[in-house]
Amino acid sequence: LIGAGLLEEVAACLACRRAGSPAAVVTDPVVGAFYRDRLMAALAKGAPGLRVAWIEVPAGEGAKRLSELERLYHQFAGVPLDRRSVVVAFGGGVVGDLAGFAAATYLRGIDLIQVPTTLLAQVDASVGGKTGIDLPEGKNLVGAFHQPRRVIADLETLQTLPAAQLRAGLAEVIKYGVIADPSLLDILEAQREPILAGEPAALEELVVRSCRIKAEVVAGDERETGRRAILNFGHTIGHALEAATGYGEYLHGEAVAIGMVAAARLSCRLAGLPAGEARRLEELMRAYGLPSAPRKPVAPERLLEAARRDKKARAGDVHFVLANRLGEVDLYPVPERVIRDTLETLNG
Amino acid sequence: LIGAGLLEEVAACLACRRAGSPAAVVTDPVVGAFYRDRLMAALAKGAPGLRVAWIEVPAGEGAKRLSELERLYHQFAGVPLDRRSVVVAFGGGVVGDLAGFAAATYLRGIDLIQVPTTLLAQVDASVGGKTGIDLPEGKNLVGAFHQPRRVIADLETLQTLPAAQLRAGLAEVIKYGVIADPSLLDILEAQREPILAGEPAALEELVVRSCRIKAEVVAGDERETGRRAILNFGHTIGHALEAATGYGEYLHGEAVAIGMVAAARLSCRLAGLPAGEARRLEELMRAYGLPSAPRKPVAPERLLEAARRDKKARAGDVHFVLANRLGEVDLYPVPERVIRDTLETLNG
Repeated sequence: LIGAGLLEEVAACLACRRAGSPAAVVTDPVVGAFYRDRLMAALAKGAPGLRVAWIEVPAGEGAKRLSELERLYHQFAGVPLDRRSVVVAFGGGVVGDLAGFAAATYLRGIDLIQVPTTLLAQVDASVGGKTGIDLPEGKNLVGAFHQPRRVIADLETLQTLPAAQLRAGLAEVIKYGVIADPSLLDILEAQREPILAGEPAALEELVVRSCRIKAEVVAGDERETGRRAILNFGHTIGHALEAATGYGEYLHGEAVAIGMVAAARLSCRLAGLPAGEARRLEELMRAYGLPSAPRKPVAPERLLEAARRDKKARAGDVHFVLANRLGEVDLYPVPERVIRDTLETLNG
Repeated sequence: LIGAGLLEEVAACLACRRAGSPAAVVTDPVVGAFYRDRLMAALAKGAPGLRVAWIEVPAGEGAKRLSELERLYHQFAGVPLDRRSVVVAFGGGVVGDLAGFAAATYLRGIDLIQVPTTLLAQVDASVGGKTGIDLPEGKNLVGAFHQPRRVIADLETLQTLPAAQLRAGLAEVIKYGVIADPSLLDILEAQREPILAGEPAALEELVVRSCRIKAEVVAGDERETGRRAILNFGHTIGHALEAATGYGEYLHGEAVAIGMVAAARLSCRLAGLPAGEARRLEELMRAYGLPSAPRKPVAPERLLEAARRDKKARAGDVHFVLANRLGEVDLYPVPERVIRDTLETLNG
């Protein structure tokens, strides 16, 4: 469900379930401060008599750790949730990943409803069933596939989203434009102002089209044995940059924007992408205030090292999703020398 | 695969996988002391060049905790295992549950081979895909369904199994006799001596028939929404007894034996089981040195309380799997007064 003012739908969704089992809303203090009263009022009205536990986890990627997972388990057991209970993940990607993984594994899996409140979560994290937490050794090293019963994306919640996070979410929308639907790029170019203002009417089309692409790709390859990999356009270097800078230096969407610039340049060299289309992407990044190069130079060797450690790497090659043209991508093995050259161009 | 001398099959199973990705054998020090050399020799011979990490977790139910899971994750990341790696769970139910859950969740799920070395694990835990760990609030509260690629049950490993554990495993075999295949009870009655001596030839038929029943039931209802529940015959009170005595007082199979005696008596009262068949079960317990009553009296109210908290409980009733006759069971809601009465008879 995608639209403006949908928090009431969460209540409707819980009300239609069999009664007697409590539910849990997992969120963070930032989202809680904005929306707790509104969601709890909607639940009291739309799902009267339902017992709802309100559970807050710390804001930020640091919450995706085993100790917070353990705390969630104890809180679930304290309610206690049972096999017919539902967990509502109410927040951005961190809340969705952590609460989703807790729901995937508590009592060997209970129902999950994703209510994403960031653009990134609405167009990416909430769809597709990936959940997980980080280890000190790497991001998302532990997790599960657990499809939500429903994803409810309320576009109004984007109005309280910081501008930098809105822009970072748009990086993933640009990605969908590159891998499957160039008309997204046309919309981004034509409607820059209402989009950056977070106007629901302007964002709706972007979210709908992005989710459709993600859902189609995932439905064809849930476990990422093949085509799902195309969703990683820009992510090989994006992830490597996040890892090499210790996370926190770049928002995920910012790192992906830089990774997409690198991937576009590789695409020109190896996949026949016209140079003008790569430039068009870089201009779009600029128009939306997204970086197209690291803010401080990063040694190519460090990025390459991190890319090799990526959990999607296979022995030997580093594989990249590259664009043959805007809207069509394939997986290419890329020689390390070529990667190094291209990374050098990022440092200007 | 069920048979004598099958550790070489583990090597064959790993050798036929695509090369390049390391494997991990997870076991405990007890199993490691008996079989490490033999398994590693088989792997060196049957899967030459394969990198194998040998990882030991503490013996006993205490290992099924989040801190040990975390240690496993770190060891997997240290190898590092990748998406094509395989985890071999080599041991009893604790190792299978813990290593299985780690495999289910590391990199969102990597391949698992179960190599059960206890009778309980061979006839029950290794088949069906349940994995998990305990929380302070209860057993198996966290877990995942993760089907092993293969289950390799080497009957020769049962020769190093302590007699009490062999007997405890036989309690689950008796259970399969009650819920689906009374000929198992005939075999147990006719071949007591070779079975108790752990002779592979005598045990093979028991393990094969038990696994067949478990696999059939699970294939029809993997997520335990219906018929899989019949596998819980004797387990409602069995689990309650384990919980009420703080675990460690009874082996799981011993608690299940007592639970089956209670369930048989309830079956006589509510499901039409002839009294003679309940007596036949109690005699079988005695013949195999299994308890048919708690060693120290336990207040019925404490067992009832624990049964209510069981994760399979639904709001309101306590449900029992009861036998209409040997080989045929159904799920019955049982009034608490009747449960209390029956539990009183256990205390003699």
